[in-house]
Amino acid sequence: MQLLPVILPEPSILLCAFVSSCPLPVGPRCGCHIPPPLLLTMSATSGFKLNHVMIRVRDPEPSLKFYQEVLGMRLLYKMDVEMAKFTNYFMGHVTDEEYELYQSFGAAENNSPEKLKLLFGRLALVELCHNWGTESDESFKGYHGGNSEPRGFGHLCLSVPDLTAACKHFDDHKVKFTKRPDDGMIKGVAFIHDPDGYAIEIVQPDLPISM
Amino acid sequence: MQLLPVILPEPSILLCAFVSSCPLPVGPRCGCHIPPPLLLTMSATSGFKLNHVMIRVRDPEPSLKFYQEVLGMRLLYKMDVEMAKFTNYFMGHVTDEEYELYQSFGAAENNSPEKLKLLFGRLALVELCHNWGTESDESFKGYHGGNSEPRGFGHLCLSVPDLTAACKHFDDHKVKFTKRPDDGMIKGVAFIHDPDGYAIEIVQPDLPISM
Repeated sequence: MQLLPVILPEPSILLCAFVSSCPLPVGPRCGCHIPPPLLLTMSATSGFKLNHVMIRVRDPEPSLKFYQEVLGMRLLYKMDVEMAKFTNYFMGHVTDEEYELYQSFGAAENNSPEKLKLLFGRLALVELCHNWGTESDESFKGYHGGNSEPRGFGHLCLSVPDLTAACKHFDDHKVKFTKRPDDGMIKGVAFIHDPDGYAIEIVQPDLPISM
Repeated sequence: MQLLPVILPEPSILLCAFVSSCPLPVGPRCGCHIPPPLLLTMSATSGFKLNHVMIRVRDPEPSLKFYQEVLGMRLLYKMDVEMAKFTNYFMGHVTDEEYELYQSFGAAENNSPEKLKLLFGRLALVELCHNWGTESDESFKGYHGGNSEPRGFGHLCLSVPDLTAACKHFDDHKVKFTKRPDDGMIKGVAFIHDPDGYAIEIVQPDLPISM
C-alpha cells in the first residue's frame, strides 16, 4: 500500500479509484494500491469556477460597441427582466466555432437550457447590467468605478498577446488611456477606461513588468 | 473559388491558409479554395482574455481563508509592492496538477518570468488588493461593494456543479447568505457575501433559473 501526499482544499475525501469495488476513503483501512493518475479527488469545492463579473452600465449601445469592438468579446446572451426593468448582456471571449454554436440557438435572447448550460459553465464572462432608462435620464450621474471614494472594486484585467499592438488598436478606436505602458511606477502595463469609467488593465503575459 | 461568410470582430483579415504560398487576404484576388477548418483568423483582438478582476480587501487573513476554503481557489501569486505599501494576492481555481506547477516555483512571492507568464496567461483570477494597515485601522470604514449608492460593480459569479451541496458547504463555513436559492423573484440562484461584503452569485449551469 502506498499513500500519496496530495494537498487539497478542505474538506476533502480521496476515494480509492483503482479498485472500483473499494468504497473506502484513502487511508489505513484501504489496502488498494492507488497510482496517482487514477486518484479521484472529491472536494466540496470541486468544479467551482469564476463564471462572470457583473458591472452596471448606463447605456448599452456604447458599452456593447466597446466590449465587442475594442475588447474583442461577443454578445452570448441577452437577458431581459421585464418585471424589474433591466437587461443583462453576457459578453465573453469565444472562438469563432464557439460563437457559431451560441448563434445556432437563434437570437441572443434565446434562453434554452442547453444554451444556458454552456453559458454558465464557462469561465471569465462579463455581465453588463442595464437598468432601463439611465441612458436617457439627465439626472442620472453615472455609475461608480470604485477607484475614488468610496473605494472597492478596482478593475478588470485583460491579457493580450501583444501590448504594443493592443495599444495601437485602442488608439485606433480613440480609447482613453489612464496609463500607457511606459507611464508611472509600474512599466509594461496599460490602463484604459470603458464607457462608464470602469478601469481596465492590459497586460502581456510574457512581457516583464518592471518597477 | 468559394468564399465563406465568417463573422469576425473588426478589424479582421482572413488569410488564405490552404495554399501556403498564397500571401493574399481572402477575397476576389485569392483564387485558392479554403476549407473552413483551415481558415486562419487574424484580428486585432485575437488572444484577448479576461485574466482577473481586482477588488480591495480590508484584511487579507479572513479574505484568503474565504477565497481558499469557501470558494476553493488557491493562492497563486503574492505581489508585495513595498513602495506603495500594498500587497496583491492572485487567487484562482486550478487543478491539483496546475497548483503543483505554481508551487514548483517556490514561495507565493516568486515572480520569475516563467511563473508570471503562466499566471497572466490564465483566465478568471481574482486579485485581492490589500493596502497595508486597513486591517488594524479603527477609523477605516471598510470597502464599498457597489450595490448601494453610489452603485457600480455588482458581483462575482461562481458556477458550481451542485448548488444544494455548495449551499451546505457555505453553511458549514457559516457564510452569510443574501439570498438562498428559493428566496426572492429569481429561483435557482444564491447570493453570498465575502468578508468585505462583496456580493457573490452562485449558479449551477444545468439548473433551470425560474422567475
